[in-house]
Amino acid sequence: MALFVTKFGGSSVATTDKIKNVCAKIMDIKGQGDNVVVVVSAMGDTTDDLIELAEKLGDINQHREMDMLLSTGEQQSAALLALCLIEMGCPAVSLNGWQAGIKTDGQHSKARIKDIDITRIKEGLEAGKVVVIAGFQGTSPAGDITTLGRGGSDTSAVALAAKLKAERCMIFTDVDGVYTADPRIVKEARKLSDISYEEMLEMASLGAAVLQPRAAEFAMLYNVDVEVRSSFNNNPGTIITEVAKMEKQRVVSGVAHDVNVARIALFDVPDNPGVASVIFKTLADKGINVDMVIQSAMRDNRNDIAFTIERKEFERARPVVNEIVMKLGASGMSYKTDVAKVSVVGAGMQTNPGVAGNMFDALAHKNINIHMISTSEIKISCVVDEDDIKTAVQALHEKFGLDQAE
Amino acid sequence: MALFVTKFGGSSVATTDKIKNVCAKIMDIKGQGDNVVVVVSAMGDTTDDLIELAEKLGDINQHREMDMLLSTGEQQSAALLALCLIEMGCPAVSLNGWQAGIKTDGQHSKARIKDIDITRIKEGLEAGKVVVIAGFQGTSPAGDITTLGRGGSDTSAVALAAKLKAERCMIFTDVDGVYTADPRIVKEARKLSDISYEEMLEMASLGAAVLQPRAAEFAMLYNVDVEVRSSFNNNPGTIITEVAKMEKQRVVSGVAHDVNVARIALFDVPDNPGVASVIFKTLADKGINVDMVIQSAMRDNRNDIAFTIERKEFERARPVVNEIVMKLGASGMSYKTDVAKVSVVGAGMQTNPGVAGNMFDALAHKNINIHMISTSEIKISCVVDEDDIKTAVQALHEKFGLDQAE
Repeated sequence: MALFVTKFGGSSVATTDKIKNVCAKIMDIKGQGDNVVVVVSAMGDTTDDLIELAEKLGDINQHREMDMLLSTGEQQSAALLALCLIEMGCPAVSLNGWQAGIKTDGQHSKARIKDIDITRIKEGLEAGKVVVIAGFQGTSPAGDITTLGRGGSDTSAVALAAKLKAERCMIFTDVDGVYTADPRIVKEARKLSDISYEEMLEMASLGAAVLQPRAAEFAMLYNVDVEVRSSFNNNPGTIITEVAKMEKQRVVSGVAHDVNVARIALFDVPDNPGVASVIFKTLADKGINVDMVIQSAMRDNRNDIAFTIERKEFERARPVVNEIVMKLGASGMSYKTDVAKVSVVGAGMQTNPGVAGNMFDALAHKNINIHMISTSEIKISCVVDEDDIKTAVQALHEKFGLDQAE
Repeated sequence: MALFVTKFGGSSVATTDKIKNVCAKIMDIKGQGDNVVVVVSAMGDTTDDLIELAEKLGDINQHREMDMLLSTGEQQSAALLALCLIEMGCPAVSLNGWQAGIKTDGQHSKARIKDIDITRIKEGLEAGKVVVIAGFQGTSPAGDITTLGRGGSDTSAVALAAKLKAERCMIFTDVDGVYTADPRIVKEARKLSDISYEEMLEMASLGAAVLQPRAAEFAMLYNVDVEVRSSFNNNPGTIITEVAKMEKQRVVSGVAHDVNVARIALFDVPDNPGVASVIFKTLADKGINVDMVIQSAMRDNRNDIAFTIERKEFERARPVVNEIVMKLGASGMSYKTDVAKVSVVGAGMQTNPGVAGNMFDALAHKNINIHMISTSEIKISCVVDEDDIKTAVQALHEKFGLDQAE
């Protein structure tokens, strides 16, 4: 008898009809004689509606009270799912964060799970029940309700799967799995049957967010097999697992892209120790996330430094960068907001040199100009003009043979 | 520095504007340098909306899951009130049932409060905060969320006032207090400045429900002074207290009435031991509440037995009574659904004989026929035709001088 942890997001439980579908799916899994733990998000727009109410009354940065408020959405959907399962003849019990023993630190609105006391979950399972757990929440050492931040229910599910030593954590969502590229851009894109944790993390941070990065990290840390699959059909999804368990090593697993990019360059920055620290610490203090960074070769003891940020942060970053230019005595700055990033990701890259060369070659072949390059062990990213991004993704997908069956 | 426990019902917190008004009121009370604990119900129709959702998915008699679901309404309004108070410059913290230490038995949907661990409430008060507590809920010995049933938030407030030894429990509602009669029927009706627990219980059970009977019982048991007053103005309300503390002893404090009444009579019931038990136990087993009971003088070893029930239960009671008639060998039954009950209530009755006589006299003077009479130590009730009820209430209000200032 295996144990499966399943997670259903807000869009999967947005209406009573959808809740009934979800319950049928749960009973299918349970029907094979297995134990099932279900993690649910709040129904559809519940969380947004509550935030809207709160905005009319006070400061939504009062995180302790906001957590108290928002956590009710998941408690409601958990209770409704349990009611529906019982009605369909499947014994079930709902648990909220504190009943499920989910202990977090005290960082309201972005708490981290520290431990899970699984006593009550075990009790429910041993009584033959499906245990439905409110996702996204836990309790702090002070006994306050905490929430886990963006994608928190994914993290709840993976953490529960780790602690319960589940066979698999199944994340039901509105996509079929992880694709070799965005199917809206590459019509030959294929769904991957499996992908490694590291590849998933690179894909997720590049905008292919089918699983929240925090949940993927958690899965990697505790070695939990996670399957991402659709709530709306019965197709098998993509299994996120460790490299060693994957059926086949691929050099390149997918092509990811991101158009939410802006590029900023500083000219003639004096080459003194601590200069980079001034630039990037100042930006971090303002909450501006820097992605790629490139420092050009030194000329006359001065460097050119270029970096990318999220495009939507550009207007906020601009005056900050101007100040930095003055402070450091650089000769000026330039920026470009119509750029995009394309990346090839693959665990096999580590042992297969030549991927970078092939990538540049494919882009050059299409006359695509590369503004910046950055590499990690399993990823190579290039910044190109936004107008070129579609052609770039298609060219790379073809170049690395991703349209061919594994 | 005194401590006040205040309670605001669902209609008082139905909109964000109303919540702001409630917060201003709380700050007024707190502003005098006192400590304030606030008990809130769910906003407006929240509970009904949740029940409607649940009905579409399963059985709303799955009380454990329903309690899990419905308790979120109060948790939301508590968090919203705390957010609003903080925004207005008043430190505040919200607590749900388990955080407030409200321990109940395990009877889901109608749990009874067993004890309150006030540690966290004290902590909040000692930190100078208004403590906002989700009403209507607690936790069972098994660690499940329970709800207290109809009027549960009133009970939460009175129990908290008792345990915290509060100066007073203030129940803010949509009426100004307890009146000598229903002001819609008697335009001379006056608001009482005080009323005894016992009188309040009699009034409440007679339909003048400004305070839930269970809360009034709790207040009597623990000797808590309860003030019922309006959320929408600043008028003083009515204080419910022990007789000894009342300013003035009155013979009659008020005239209550109830039109939700049906009368059933059984003819020629054999006068054997256990007969009454058969009738009333059978009805109780079907959940039908019997109010007044009258057994006429015995003739030929047979009795006539008449009783009243809630009119809305009549259709359900009718076949049950028919069965009883067959079973006991009575000669038949009759019923009347267009009757009503009028009562005079007063703690002073115990030492002032003659109230009953005056009552019958006043009714006779208006040609009102009395179908049944029942008396307790502080109440006399008569069943009359529903068409006569308005005249009856007015006549009794005048007869006992209730229109004159105390």
